[in-house]
Amino acid sequence: MSTETLTRAAEWPGLLNAEGKRWHYLDTAATAQKPQSVIDAMTRAMGADYATVHRGVYTRSAEMTLAYEAARRTVAALIGGREDELVFTRGATEAINLVAQTWGVTNLKPGDRVLLSQLEHHSNIVPWQLIRDRTGLEIDVCPLTEDGRIDLDAAERMLTPAHKLVAFAHVSNVLGSVLDVPRAVALAHGVGAKILLDGCQAAARLPVDVAALGCDFYVFSAHKLYGPTGIGALWAKKDLLDAMPPWQGGGSMIDRVTFAQTTWAPAPQRFEAGTPAIVEAIAFGAAADFLTSHGLDAIHAHETRMVAMAREALGRINSVRLFGPEDSAGIVSFALEGVHPHDLGTILDEENVAIRAGHHCAQPLMEHLGVPATARASFGIYSDESDVAALLRGIERTKRIFG
Amino acid sequence: MSTETLTRAAEWPGLLNAEGKRWHYLDTAATAQKPQSVIDAMTRAMGADYATVHRGVYTRSAEMTLAYEAARRTVAALIGGREDELVFTRGATEAINLVAQTWGVTNLKPGDRVLLSQLEHHSNIVPWQLIRDRTGLEIDVCPLTEDGRIDLDAAERMLTPAHKLVAFAHVSNVLGSVLDVPRAVALAHGVGAKILLDGCQAAARLPVDVAALGCDFYVFSAHKLYGPTGIGALWAKKDLLDAMPPWQGGGSMIDRVTFAQTTWAPAPQRFEAGTPAIVEAIAFGAAADFLTSHGLDAIHAHETRMVAMAREALGRINSVRLFGPEDSAGIVSFALEGVHPHDLGTILDEENVAIRAGHHCAQPLMEHLGVPATARASFGIYSDESDVAALLRGIERTKRIFG
Repeated sequence: MSTETLTRAAEWPGLLNAEGKRWHYLDTAATAQKPQSVIDAMTRAMGADYATVHRGVYTRSAEMTLAYEAARRTVAALIGGREDELVFTRGATEAINLVAQTWGVTNLKPGDRVLLSQLEHHSNIVPWQLIRDRTGLEIDVCPLTEDGRIDLDAAERMLTPAHKLVAFAHVSNVLGSVLDVPRAVALAHGVGAKILLDGCQAAARLPVDVAALGCDFYVFSAHKLYGPTGIGALWAKKDLLDAMPPWQGGGSMIDRVTFAQTTWAPAPQRFEAGTPAIVEAIAFGAAADFLTSHGLDAIHAHETRMVAMAREALGRINSVRLFGPEDSAGIVSFALEGVHPHDLGTILDEENVAIRAGHHCAQPLMEHLGVPATARASFGIYSDESDVAALLRGIERTKRIFG
Repeated sequence: MSTETLTRAAEWPGLLNAEGKRWHYLDTAATAQKPQSVIDAMTRAMGADYATVHRGVYTRSAEMTLAYEAARRTVAALIGGREDELVFTRGATEAINLVAQTWGVTNLKPGDRVLLSQLEHHSNIVPWQLIRDRTGLEIDVCPLTEDGRIDLDAAERMLTPAHKLVAFAHVSNVLGSVLDVPRAVALAHGVGAKILLDGCQAAARLPVDVAALGCDFYVFSAHKLYGPTGIGALWAKKDLLDAMPPWQGGGSMIDRVTFAQTTWAPAPQRFEAGTPAIVEAIAFGAAADFLTSHGLDAIHAHETRMVAMAREALGRINSVRLFGPEDSAGIVSFALEGVHPHDLGTILDEENVAIRAGHHCAQPLMEHLGVPATARASFGIYSDESDVAALLRGIERTKRIFG
């Protein structure tokens, strides 16, 4: 094996293919591969360090509790938040459902309006539809600009005092378009609405500072952040979190239980019923440390270069249609004329290149783009020129096959 | 290191203390330590095998999807269920909340009654309280027998056609009492009620066959089953699962999303919104394989011997009060006269023995027992005589300190 391959195997065991060669993994927007440091944190937490949290009277459980709470602090700090504002959830999807089913159900009345956008992931559409019947809320859909951004001029015209919530993707999972967050926050707050940002794609790609941005809710998942599956986070302003009623009942979220009446623990514990994802939280902390050590500015700059390189190269192929803005954050969606994205994905797979082909859990956006699916190449900290070159070789081969 | 120690370290990395000696871990009812096979399954799934599921068009994602669905089959089979009846949840707590907030909210009307018992874990009390206001349900509490079992004679007298659900622990997490499930099922079904069993303590300690038992819902968590944190399961009869509306919205649980109307995927996918706990599901499958390879009959027999040994030895100490029935499944709760359980736990910790001291998320049961807390020793597949001996030595030392 080459030195590069050895280094890669030691640092990123997921990035070699079955033959031990570099795997051109261009599906980081679906889920990121894990650095060895995160895997090691997980292994240690499941092995030599393993114990439950918050309950044991023995030393190892007390140490595990400290590690779990330290992870909360680290993950909160990654996005500029405080530990008492961060709830560990099963993932970003659960985080949005939590907001909908607690804050939403409590605060939204018949006639109140929620503003989403045409490019939202299903996880930022369906939770609001699910509580529509319970609350009587109405959903409005902000259109996109020509180049695939949420059109904030349109949002400005649409927003009224009836709007109680704006929920937008910070970065589109299909187009990579980056939201102008300060303006979106100002527009929402200008009509008295709260604003929730779906940070799934942003938190691993851009420096995020929720305090500076002034948003009300921020959600993200660990597995897209080089961390484990099975965990994500909801960050919320403390006063909002404190006022939210519990959603799921069980151990650890209570103050005192009697059959007559039960009282609740303060936030964030109130929203973490049952034994938490202990090992995953610790590995989530390790992933946040990994990102911080590399620096989100540097990661963003790297992915911006990858996007520029890919868009430039793809743009030279005249049967390729590129979607999304030039300054996309790490994600390039495209179509190859006359070839279904699934067929392209299958041929690229034979060429040792992994892309995503499909609706990307964003069917309303597909409808807007007028396609059933797109091909999507997405980049991460481990991507390089050879990945783009392999993608292009695969597309050329596909063209020959379908030509 | 002794051969025993080396074997233990290789098979159970969590069962050595900081000095590399046998740790007398008697808190398996809180969470079980993990065999190396489960840790290895997790490491491999996060590394060389890692990819997302259900979405990718490339080989590794297709393989991961097969592994994820095979884990569902394995976990379902562990309790005698079918894969299309098993939903992966964040844990047992989420599984009960899921039933409450979908089946419960849909099927319970004002005046309908739910029968719980005095020994339930908070996770089988609070979810029903949380939907009390939404549904108008009334909660009844089945008392316990003298020796700490759910009193099914009392249940028989209490049950009426107004009861739509009985929700009982299969094995008490405090007392180890084993429910007479066939009789409980017959009583519930006799008045037309459904029956949910909290199998958290049972699934790792007894052979379970939901098809033979005839129950309607069965919930359990992976981390008490020698598996990972962050995942659990809801098993439900297919017709019930099929009729339940979605709870959390997001990717993977939909059929078609438009802003006007969204349609749902069939169960169990309908209840698994978002990227699932992929790695955890695979390790959950490995834990189920581990249990099956040892045999639940053999595990139960082993734990029965451990309980008999512990109860016999503790019973000879006249300042010890034992709780629960003689035939407890792997769990012994007790009190040492004049010593708060927390103090006992702390001294035992110095003696390299880990027990749990507290209300065990069962405050109504503590009230019934007339104590604020109990000390609890719980056993697992790795427990042996030396653990009981160490517990007794620690209790003797505690008596000298407090004597």
